[in-house]
Amino acid sequence: MMPFPKSEFDARIAKVKRAMEKAGVDVLLSTDTANMNYLTGYDGWSFYTPQMVIVALDAAEPIWTGRLMDAKGTEFTTYLKPENVRGFPDIYVQTPERHAASYMAGIIKENGWGRKRIGLEMDSFYFTPRAYEELRRSLPDATWVNADLLVNWVRIVKSPAEIRYMKEAGKIVERVMQTAYDEIVPGARECDVVGEVYRAMTRGTPKFGGDYSAFVPLVMSGRKSAAPHLTWTDETIKNNSAVTLELSAARFHYHSVLCRTVYLGTPPADLVRLADVCNEAITETLLKVKPGMKCEEVHATWNAVISKAGYSKESRVGYSLGVNYPPDWGEHTASLRPGDKTVLEPNMTFHMVTGMWGKDFGYEVSESWRVTETGCETLAKFPKDLHVKGGRAPARKPAKAAVRKPARKAGKKAPAPRKTKKTGRAKKR
Amino acid sequence: MMPFPKSEFDARIAKVKRAMEKAGVDVLLSTDTANMNYLTGYDGWSFYTPQMVIVALDAAEPIWTGRLMDAKGTEFTTYLKPENVRGFPDIYVQTPERHAASYMAGIIKENGWGRKRIGLEMDSFYFTPRAYEELRRSLPDATWVNADLLVNWVRIVKSPAEIRYMKEAGKIVERVMQTAYDEIVPGARECDVVGEVYRAMTRGTPKFGGDYSAFVPLVMSGRKSAAPHLTWTDETIKNNSAVTLELSAARFHYHSVLCRTVYLGTPPADLVRLADVCNEAITETLLKVKPGMKCEEVHATWNAVISKAGYSKESRVGYSLGVNYPPDWGEHTASLRPGDKTVLEPNMTFHMVTGMWGKDFGYEVSESWRVTETGCETLAKFPKDLHVKGGRAPARKPAKAAVRKPARKAGKKAPAPRKTKKTGRAKKR
Repeated sequence: MMPFPKSEFDARIAKVKRAMEKAGVDVLLSTDTANMNYLTGYDGWSFYTPQMVIVALDAAEPIWTGRLMDAKGTEFTTYLKPENVRGFPDIYVQTPERHAASYMAGIIKENGWGRKRIGLEMDSFYFTPRAYEELRRSLPDATWVNADLLVNWVRIVKSPAEIRYMKEAGKIVERVMQTAYDEIVPGARECDVVGEVYRAMTRGTPKFGGDYSAFVPLVMSGRKSAAPHLTWTDETIKNNSAVTLELSAARFHYHSVLCRTVYLGTPPADLVRLADVCNEAITETLLKVKPGMKCEEVHATWNAVISKAGYSKESRVGYSLGVNYPPDWGEHTASLRPGDKTVLEPNMTFHMVTGMWGKDFGYEVSESWRVTETGCETLAKFPKDLHVKGGRAPARKPAKAAVRKPARKAGKKAPAPRKTKKTGRAKKR
Repeated sequence: MMPFPKSEFDARIAKVKRAMEKAGVDVLLSTDTANMNYLTGYDGWSFYTPQMVIVALDAAEPIWTGRLMDAKGTEFTTYLKPENVRGFPDIYVQTPERHAASYMAGIIKENGWGRKRIGLEMDSFYFTPRAYEELRRSLPDATWVNADLLVNWVRIVKSPAEIRYMKEAGKIVERVMQTAYDEIVPGARECDVVGEVYRAMTRGTPKFGGDYSAFVPLVMSGRKSAAPHLTWTDETIKNNSAVTLELSAARFHYHSVLCRTVYLGTPPADLVRLADVCNEAITETLLKVKPGMKCEEVHATWNAVISKAGYSKESRVGYSLGVNYPPDWGEHTASLRPGDKTVLEPNMTFHMVTGMWGKDFGYEVSESWRVTETGCETLAKFPKDLHVKGGRAPARKPAKAAVRKPARKAGKKAPAPRKTKKTGRAKKR
């Protein structure tokens, strides 16, 4: 079941050990779900009980420790030898009487690591203050080092195999977005649209299926389009309203993400203008992205377009993307924002998203892309424009040049959205 | 958009304040996603950045604090006055330079709570050691109290409105399980089955849609059925193999959960025997459950059946169920296991699950149920037996009496599984 050969994991462990040496960490306790997967392949919906992967400079192979019933899953998803899989008994599960971190501390002591410099991922989602205090109490002679994001920074440059999965996720997300475009019609319930979106995400293509994403599909219609991160309701989608979409697909937990906006009816002129500016900003930026550029420069390129048009945006406009688990597909390392000095390298991958929210409507557009040797390429090919259904396009300035795309192989058609059956008046630039 | 009237929230806050007084907590910082929803109605996929609800004994209304862009979502999902919504700017998002907990500490200080007894949910998902240390550093004069599960224990007895949503989720999960039964055929890819399952979970019924669940659907076929908590792959389901299903539905994040097992072909005699014993154990237990019984007695009743048949199970067999967010639908309070002295009360709700895993196959069966005034009732009505498709049933002992059900209204049919179209030889007891 493992999506990578053992050699790929060996290379990852070697890189992480080098980073540990540099950070002064002898033993790393990795509690981040994506990091555990990255280091060992482990893949199970078991992160609601304590679990970690222990990487020690003086041990060839990491140790997985988690709930005993989940240890069986390591046989299917990891390369680990049985002696490096340590399940804790159920008496540790969700009880105030004892915490699994004390069991895990026992593994550290028995391996002679109790007096070492131990690295912790201090800001990882499922590592709680209680687990932290239990570790400190159980290992009084250890030296504690904040090793937050140590593995994440190793993850930031993807291997060819990882890029392949992200592009496969890109193929799926094209279908997912098209499904949403087709299903969004006046009178459709948000939950019905999302039901079809989930189906498309998971069925994937005839060649490969989709995995679960780190976010649920976000479909926000009407006034709710003015707020990000709300999830669907039973409400019906109304005519003369915007629907913002934050959709994704994943392949072995490697993501491609796409945000788009649909308008039912004739869009208000201020929304059209906002859409034009946002699209132009992403288009212009992706034409300039190349290795050697800093993340803050990517932001500045984007911001120049937005500011010139009189808009401003407080939040960052993108972040490193890759393998992940709920609740976040972002890698928590590089962000596209002022002050971020991360230098772009080939095979770094980003989700660049422009979400702008007004009083009563919002506009979202994004691209997931890979830094190439000379520039960048998007992981999915899907038109960026405000997708209008059943309405009339207001007057606007001429469209900008499309973002640079890699050369297309002969005989392969671009996956342009199909003409929508139900309203028939989709407008594309 | 709020699924409960303000009076329901007022009653919750009053109960939580009583629990705070008893626990010696002046100010509670609730970081558990479900608790935040329970206290204020807040509902957004924003728990990947720091957020909390602050309940103070000397303040009438709680304060929501989270990322500035998510503050807008409180207008749609909460009853909170604008002055009690405090968004932190994006400079705090995912950066080693500063943590949002310091912003949140500022709110506590400006309200005069810096020297109070402050309760923390020390083992809640998404509350990290870094946030914890930042709070302690920023509020040096506070007295810290572990208030883990304080709100969860208030949540354990459901209101009539909450029960209504859990029963609606029960109606949806009946459809979800039927969908899985219909789609599981030799040659189907696991991802395709899950795609249809997601669609059924989300579309719900014509009257009401489904929300996202705290677990993804778990569909484990073949050898993988011998391990719990694995998620789907692209592999096709084979004949002469078991498929274990852990499925669910949610309504405003209130869950009903069902585990079942399907066998394609003629099931091996040891699986049939295991299934019979597991089903009998749940049936017998639910006939005996009533208010006043302790959780450990529920476990003992179940265990008597299993032991008599020569089986044993190390892990707990159920837990309190209700409103929740990924990654766990369990409430982390009462568990059905030895030593748990929690006394059952009407409107407590549980998911009782028997998962038994052998070397090459597993069997899972479960029921979600509510404690009534005199006994218990299941939230969904769905036959428990091993569902056999396309095979021959081996000889077995006569079936046990069915679990007691509430009186059915005239004219309403039981939602028995439809005869499966593709194989036509489904066997029911």
